[in-house]
Amino acid sequence: FHLYSGSTMAKSKFEYVRNFETDDTCLRNCYIVVRLDGRNFHRFAEQHSFAKPNDERALGLMTHSARTVMEELEDIMIAYGQSDEYSFVFKRSSNWFKRRASKLVTHVASQFSSSYVFHWRDYFGEQPLLYPPGFDGRVVLYPSNQNLKDYLSWRQADCHINNLYNTAFWNLVQKGGLSTSQAEEKLKGTVAADKNEILFSEFNVNYNNEPSLYRKGTVLIWEKVNETTMKQVRLPNEEEKEVTVMRSRSKVTAHHCDVIGEQFWQQHPEILESDG
Amino acid sequence: FHLYSGSTMAKSKFEYVRNFETDDTCLRNCYIVVRLDGRNFHRFAEQHSFAKPNDERALGLMTHSARTVMEELEDIMIAYGQSDEYSFVFKRSSNWFKRRASKLVTHVASQFSSSYVFHWRDYFGEQPLLYPPGFDGRVVLYPSNQNLKDYLSWRQADCHINNLYNTAFWNLVQKGGLSTSQAEEKLKGTVAADKNEILFSEFNVNYNNEPSLYRKGTVLIWEKVNETTMKQVRLPNEEEKEVTVMRSRSKVTAHHCDVIGEQFWQQHPEILESDG
Amino acid sequence: FHLYSGSTMAKSKFEYVRNFETDDTCLRNCYIVVRLDGRNFHRFAEQHSFAKPNDERALGLMTHSARTVMEELEDIMIAYGQSDEYSFVFKRSSNWFKRRASKLVTHVASQFSSSYVFHWRDYFGEQPLLYPPGFDGRVVLYPSNQNLKDYLSWRQADCHINNLYNTAFWNLVQKGGLSTSQAEEKLKGTVAADKNEILFSEFNVNYNNEPSLYRKGTVLIWEKVNETTMKQVRLPNEEEKEVTVMRSRSKVTAHHCDVIGEQFWQQHPEILESDG
Amino acid sequence: FHLYSGSTMAKSKFEYVRNFETDDTCLRNCYIVVRLDGRNFHRFAEQHSFAKPNDERALGLMTHSARTVMEELEDIMIAYGQSDEYSFVFKRSSNWFKRRASKLVTHVASQFSSSYVFHWRDYFGEQPLLYPPGFDGRVVLYPSNQNLKDYLSWRQADCHINNLYNTAFWNLVQKGGLSTSQAEEKLKGTVAADKNEILFSEFNVNYNNEPSLYRKGTVLIWEKVNETTMKQVRLPNEEEKEVTVMRSRSKVTAHHCDVIGEQFWQQHPEILESDG
Repeated sequence: FHLYSGSTMAKSKFEYVRNFETDDTCLRNCYIVVRLDGRNFHRFAEQHSFAKPNDERALGLMTHSARTVMEELEDIMIAYGQSDEYSFVFKRSSNWFKRRASKLVTHVASQFSSSYVFHWRDYFGEQPLLYPPGFDGRVVLYPSNQNLKDYLSWRQADCHINNLYNTAFWNLVQKGGLSTSQAEEKLKGTVAADKNEILFSEFNVNYNNEPSLYRKGTVLIWEKVNETTMKQVRLPNEEEKEVTVMRSRSKVTAHHCDVIGEQFWQQHPEILESDG
Repeated sequence: FHLYSGSTMAKSKFEYVRNFETDDTCLRNCYIVVRLDGRNFHRFAEQHSFAKPNDERALGLMTHSARTVMEELEDIMIAYGQSDEYSFVFKRSSNWFKRRASKLVTHVASQFSSSYVFHWRDYFGEQPLLYPPGFDGRVVLYPSNQNLKDYLSWRQADCHINNLYNTAFWNLVQKGGLSTSQAEEKLKGTVAADKNEILFSEFNVNYNNEPSLYRKGTVLIWEKVNETTMKQVRLPNEEEKEVTVMRSRSKVTAHHCDVIGEQFWQQHPEILESDG
Repeated sequence: FHLYSGSTMAKSKFEYVRNFETDDTCLRNCYIVVRLDGRNFHRFAEQHSFAKPNDERALGLMTHSARTVMEELEDIMIAYGQSDEYSFVFKRSSNWFKRRASKLVTHVASQFSSSYVFHWRDYFGEQPLLYPPGFDGRVVLYPSNQNLKDYLSWRQADCHINNLYNTAFWNLVQKGGLSTSQAEEKLKGTVAADKNEILFSEFNVNYNNEPSLYRKGTVLIWEKVNETTMKQVRLPNEEEKEVTVMRSRSKVTAHHCDVIGEQFWQQHPEILESDG
Repeated sequence: FHLYSGSTMAKSKFEYVRNFETDDTCLRNCYIVVRLDGRNFHRFAEQHSFAKPNDERALGLMTHSARTVMEELEDIMIAYGQSDEYSFVFKRSSNWFKRRASKLVTHVASQFSSSYVFHWRDYFGEQPLLYPPGFDGRVVLYPSNQNLKDYLSWRQADCHINNLYNTAFWNLVQKGGLSTSQAEEKLKGTVAADKNEILFSEFNVNYNNEPSLYRKGTVLIWEKVNETTMKQVRLPNEEEKEVTVMRSRSKVTAHHCDVIGEQFWQQHPEILESDG
């Protein structure tokens, strides 16, 4: 029994190692953006036979996972996702986990990853998940509303550029019969208008009519929604009766709209806090 | 079509936001420790009916997930786990992801979390996982071998102290018929020797004979193991024959031994790099 | 000669140590505030017989040194000083020294310190400087105009509180004949109105008439000033003549006014950049 | 008087700005190196007519200032200087200013700069200092003794390379009558042996006989020295007598020796702490 009598002492002897942990508090009054990216998702998409250029199941699962992150963690005001990436924006006044960067980013990465596996069947049904996927994350701070809007615009512009390219590319391959290297060669040096033209003249595809989910990505925000539920109430005469009750509650809602430009922000003034 | 012609320009207009990302490179020649902790695992354990004080299935799943992390990510030399936490040690000379702290910690948190859900059934069988669990992570640097050994000793001393307490506590409750608050009261102010005595005299439990998995936690390291496989070979006379082939390969192996003290480190000199 | 032939090689063998330097770039679009504080200035003031509660020579030398900092370094828009401290505000869009915190803070601390010694005689005449004084510095970032204004207000409120206390304290000691501990005792627990009352009723001092240099501290900003200089010009008839030339140029000017409240900021809209 | 009654409240209203200060604690158990570099010292040397290639007065003043830094600040075990730079090494176990990087680096930069101006006359006599010079600083951490020795070796190798080049260059210009661009051209592409050969064959200069101050730079360390002082003592017979007293005390001593190689470190084992 003597073996353990010194254990508490032993622990305190080692406890000095705690002091090597450094403080990574995020600067106050800045938006905290956490962006996740799929690890080796090119290979993952191949192995799980994702449709090209967009797999609706995969995009749905990404957004389901992102929704879980917003519902489980605190203070995320808006999220934006496209392809295999998702950005989460914590409000600038957030004090969640004392704004410790490593805590925020790992919570997001962990919750997203476990949700992705957990909800796989809801989107891919009997097609098995072959191995647990990984996502990496980073933290970026934005001091002003304009900086944050420009960040989200940057990701949405990236979505547009990639999706237009991919749509043209896979039409050339899947319908046009080109090899992948021929398609690549054909698109080299083309600008947006060229790709639109190829899609329209060769494949009768009006890019603007493609699903906005693909062209714009997905914006998740909190919105007040009215819900009607049935409720048993006991009347004065002791009778029970079922009545319709309307409640307003906050829910995460998905949008496939422009965040570039002012319209979205004017319609949703509650997302941003003032630059005060 | 004109709507999109300016998109590349638009993207580059927003691209300045990249410069807000800050460098979080870990100091060279230091061990990088990533520690994960289960989020709200007290509640999670209740809801999934974990056995008290130790649930072998849960510990097995933790270690399986940690093993996946070691196999999937690079440069992790040793990992140590107990209860709902796991520490991963990257070698001090590692240059994985350019030593960027946020990348290292999110990769570990993400891979661990998705593996936990992925392998749930292997440990809990038909008992369903009710929701996707979360783990948070942190990064700590240790400049010397002694610092690193002291870190791991600190976690193992923590394991011992908690497990001795929990073993005494749950024996008092489960076998002794005490309420949880009575058990808490009884153990208040006791030292290790007292708890050992209670276990022995009241419940005939010799704490030293408890499973080392519970008392010591789990150490994962890379070891060379010899594997024999059967292989078809074609003999000179065109006959085919099955022969036994022995190969040596590196494998993650689990140990429930002391890391406090020098013996373990002397037996595994390959884990640490010199303080040069 | 052979001894040195390997020197370049030797250097490159050691050069890996450069990689241990870490990046300390200040977040973009934030004001960078550098604050200096005198080291052991209580003792320094004693040893150099500073007048109590305010030494005009010492304050003048502080401001002269601060002015040198603004003129020598780039992108400082405003500085604020009181007692033995001075704050310097780099504009939020500054890219001086790539916004590296250690470079900014040491340049300010070094330039201020060498100026302090260099200009000592201009303020203290034949009274010798007994030893070279030290100042320490820190860097703080402010993301919004309001935050920056609140920072400067915080320092000015600190100036007011300390100066009111010190004025009351030294009147009690110097004119009232109290010992320092009696004066301390008398002021314990008093609010501003009490101290004003003591000054007025016991010493006939109206605190509001004390020099604003003492009550408000010193604000340094860049202002356009018109300067007239004499210049020799050669007339068409080869005659030389002296003419008066008026030029507008930017100069550092000192003010002892409120920065708490909006008036100052409305009068000097060029100091702040918009929160865009 | 009412104007000020709310001042303490005002201060606390603004005090939230303190929370924007971030923690910059240096990782424990690492050597903290602060290196200063002269700002625009090429111009400064020109304007103050420094001798080429080495000005003994300027080097002496640098070392005097560095000595002041070591004597005034705590926990600096060794400093190394050459040209217009000086490096200061805080011991790895130092807890001075809680290891806050900004405090350490500004204290060094400030004390060095004010000392440089303060002691100017001791080295330059009647030649006036034209303006207050500036020095910038940086902080670098080294986790192991080998890393630290390699850092100092790097700086000394740099000293050697620059001084050999400068010695050859200025001999070509001052004695050889070449223009500066001709001298530059002549040295282009030469290795150390070539420069030694030029010095020897053209100017009869054996580089190895050049002052070690120039070739090796200056190492400052703390050493126990025995000092003899005269002291009046009163003898039993009431007579007074002057006696010689020997005391041992720690003093900063200067050396112009190799820090590359093991000899120096073996002679001064007290400088480094073990890698434990």
